[in-house]
Amino acid sequence: MSVTFAPGFIAAGLAAGIKPTGAPDLALVATDDHQPVTAAAVFTSNVVAAAPVQISRRHVANGRAAAVILNSGNANAATGDRGRATATAACDVVATALGCAADDVLVCSTGLIGIPLDAALIVDAVPALAAQLTADGGAAAARAIMTTDTVAKEAALTVDAHGVTIRIGGMAKGAAMLAPSLATMLAVVTTDADIAPDALHAAIADATATSFNRLLVDGCTSTNDTVIVLANGRAGNATIELGSEALEEFTSGLQRVCAELALAMARDAEGASKVVSIAVRGAASDADALRAARGVARSQLVQCSINGCDPYWGRVLSELGASGATFDPEAVEIAYGGVVVCRNGVEALHDVAAANAVVHQPEYTISCELHAGSAEATVLTTDLSHAYIDENRGTS
Amino acid sequence: MSVTFAPGFIAAGLAAGIKPTGAPDLALVATDDHQPVTAAAVFTSNVVAAAPVQISRRHVANGRAAAVILNSGNANAATGDRGRATATAACDVVATALGCAADDVLVCSTGLIGIPLDAALIVDAVPALAAQLTADGGAAAARAIMTTDTVAKEAALTVDAHGVTIRIGGMAKGAAMLAPSLATMLAVVTTDADIAPDALHAAIADATATSFNRLLVDGCTSTNDTVIVLANGRAGNATIELGSEALEEFTSGLQRVCAELALAMARDAEGASKVVSIAVRGAASDADALRAARGVARSQLVQCSINGCDPYWGRVLSELGASGATFDPEAVEIAYGGVVVCRNGVEALHDVAAANAVVHQPEYTISCELHAGSAEATVLTTDLSHAYIDENRGTS
Repeated sequence: MSVTFAPGFIAAGLAAGIKPTGAPDLALVATDDHQPVTAAAVFTSNVVAAAPVQISRRHVANGRAAAVILNSGNANAATGDRGRATATAACDVVATALGCAADDVLVCSTGLIGIPLDAALIVDAVPALAAQLTADGGAAAARAIMTTDTVAKEAALTVDAHGVTIRIGGMAKGAAMLAPSLATMLAVVTTDADIAPDALHAAIADATATSFNRLLVDGCTSTNDTVIVLANGRAGNATIELGSEALEEFTSGLQRVCAELALAMARDAEGASKVVSIAVRGAASDADALRAARGVARSQLVQCSINGCDPYWGRVLSELGASGATFDPEAVEIAYGGVVVCRNGVEALHDVAAANAVVHQPEYTISCELHAGSAEATVLTTDLSHAYIDENRGTS
Repeated sequence: MSVTFAPGFIAAGLAAGIKPTGAPDLALVATDDHQPVTAAAVFTSNVVAAAPVQISRRHVANGRAAAVILNSGNANAATGDRGRATATAACDVVATALGCAADDVLVCSTGLIGIPLDAALIVDAVPALAAQLTADGGAAAARAIMTTDTVAKEAALTVDAHGVTIRIGGMAKGAAMLAPSLATMLAVVTTDADIAPDALHAAIADATATSFNRLLVDGCTSTNDTVIVLANGRAGNATIELGSEALEEFTSGLQRVCAELALAMARDAEGASKVVSIAVRGAASDADALRAARGVARSQLVQCSINGCDPYWGRVLSELGASGATFDPEAVEIAYGGVVVCRNGVEALHDVAAANAVVHQPEYTISCELHAGSAEATVLTTDLSHAYIDENRGTS
C-alpha cells in the first residue's frame, strides 16, 4: 500500500506500449467514487514545461481533482501543440472511463524529451486500466511510473489529529536530473484528511521545499517535475484550515512521506553508490544555509571525492566559498560523520582512520559549521560515478 | 616564446621538490632589469581565497610589479596564518634575489587544497631559479606551473598601435575546476605596451570576462584563480589611456591571447574528449544570453550526451529553460554544427546522419536561437567522461 494507503483511493498500472521494452508504463490513481476531491500540486520551475505540466496546471487551478493519469517512457516535452493535444486526450479518455469532468483529471509524463507521444497508445489502454483500479493497485501504479529507477518508491504513515487518525501515502519516481527546484520526478500523494484547498496547497509547497527540493544529484531541473496531493476528507477530522496548528501537524506528516520518497530517490539515483547529507549550520540566513549546502551538494568535484571514498575537505570548503554565502573562511569547521577534519578553516588534527571509515560507508553526513549565524539546511546528494555517465551518454 | 615574447621579460622554471614526482613545480617571471612595471590582476571570486591570492591582491594594489613567483603541486589554500607566512616568504626571497621590493612581487599557487606548503622548499630554490632567468625561459616557466595539464599552454601575438608594434605573450595552466568566475587557472601575460595602470586593469578585466570566464568544464570556482598582466612600456607607443580607441585595440589583442589560452585549457581539460561551443543568440539581454549559455554548458546531462556523441537537443532545451533566461520555449531553434534539429521548440525534420556526423567531431558548436532579442554569448564546455571521474576521485 502506498498511494492507496488512505481509504477511498484506488490505483492501477499496466503496459500500454509506450516503452519499447514492453514494461509497465501507464498508471492511474483515482478516487473510488470517481468524484473530485481537494487537490493541490507543485510543478517544475523550468520555463520549458512539458505539455502535461501545462495541462495539469490548468486543471488543478480549481483545487479539485478525481484522478491522475501518469505515463513513463516519454516526457511529452518539447512537443508543442501536438503534445498538448495528447495530454488533453489522456485527460479526456480518463474522464470518459470514470464519468468525471476532464478538468478533474491531472496528467504527468516522464521519459525522453522532444519525441512525440502517440495519444492512441494511452487512449486505447485507459479503458482496461480503469477496469483494473483497486485499493490494492498502489504497487502496480508505482511500478508503471519507473524510468531508470531500479525500485518502485512508496511511503505511507499516519498522523493523529486530536484522536482522529489521518492516513497519508504516496508514490514517486525519479532517478536522475535531481535538482534544486524539484528533481526530475513525479510524485502522487493521497490522504483521507479533511483539509481546505488553500491549506493543502500550503502543505504540499512546504513539504516539497524541505524534501524533494533538498535532493540534488546532478543539478538539472526537468521539464516535467510534478508533485500532486489529493485529500478526500474521509478521516472525519475537523477541517484543517490555513494558519492552524492542525495544519502544522499535517504538513509535518506530509513532509515525512515526501522526505522518505526523496531518500528513496537518492538511494536509487542513476549509478550512485553513496548517499551523503550535506548539513550546513551556523549560516547567516536560511538562504545562505541552503545556498552553501546546495553549492557543496552540486559540486562535481565533491561528488567525485565521495565516489572515491576520499575525505577531501578542501573541496568542500572551496565550494562553500564559491556558493555565495557570507562567512569567514577561517572560522569554518567541517566534519565527516562527526570526525572534525577542518577547524578554523585549516586542517584539524584528526583520526585519519576514523575519517576514512566514515567515507567508506554507503551513507554518511558532511557537516559544515560556518560560525556566521544560526541558520541551517541539509541537502542530500550522491556520488558521481562511471555508471551515471553510462546511463546518460546515449538515449538508446 | 610566450610569457617572454615581449622584450624586457625573463622567466625560468625548475623542480623545487613540491611535487612528490620531482617534476618542475616552481616558475618565476620577472622584468629583465628587476624594476617594477605597470601591473594589473584579476582574482577568484571565491570567499575562500588562497593565501597567495590574499598576498597578491595586496601587492598589486599599487599597480606595479617586478616579478611573479608561481608554484604547482600545492595550492597553499585553507592554510591560514602559516599559508600567508609561506606566500610572504616566497615574495621576500624573490625580492632579495632580484633586488626589488617584496611588495613588487606577486605570488600564485596551484594544486591540492588544505595541505601546508613548506616555505623552505621555495626559499631554498629561488636563488637557483633567479639565476636561470632568461628571455628564453618562457617554456620552462609554463611547464613548471602544470598540474594535471598534459601540455604547457602558451600564446603570443602582436598588435599594431599606429605603426608601433606591441607584443603580448602569456602562459597559463588549468585543467579542471574550470568555472563561471575564472577557471582553476593561473595565467601570466606580459606586454611591452605603454599603458596607464587603470587602463591595464580595465583591459585585463574585459579580456578575462570574454575568455577565461567563458570556459566552463565542471562549474567549480577555485580558491586560487589568478590572471596577472605586466606591461613595461618598451614598445614606445603613446601611453594607452582609459577610454581611448587605442585601449580598445590593445584589449582586443589581450583578449585574443587569453582566449587562445582558454581554448588550450578546454582542449586539455581533465578527461575531456570534446570541446563544444555553446552559442546562444537572440537573448533578451546580455545577462540572459550568458545565463542560458552557461546553463547548457554546465549541465552534467548535456556533457554526458556530448561524451556519448548523442545529439539529444531535448536536454539542451531543458537547460535553457532552467537557466533563468526569459524566452518563449516554442520559438527556440537549436542546431548542431549548423544542422537545425529543433525549430519552434519541437523536433525539426533534419538530416539525422548529418547531425550524427557533427557530434562525432572532436570540436563543434551547439547554437541556440532564443528569438527573444538580439543579445548573444558563447561559452566553451567539454564532455563528462570516466577519465574526469578517475582524475578527481582521489587525491593520491
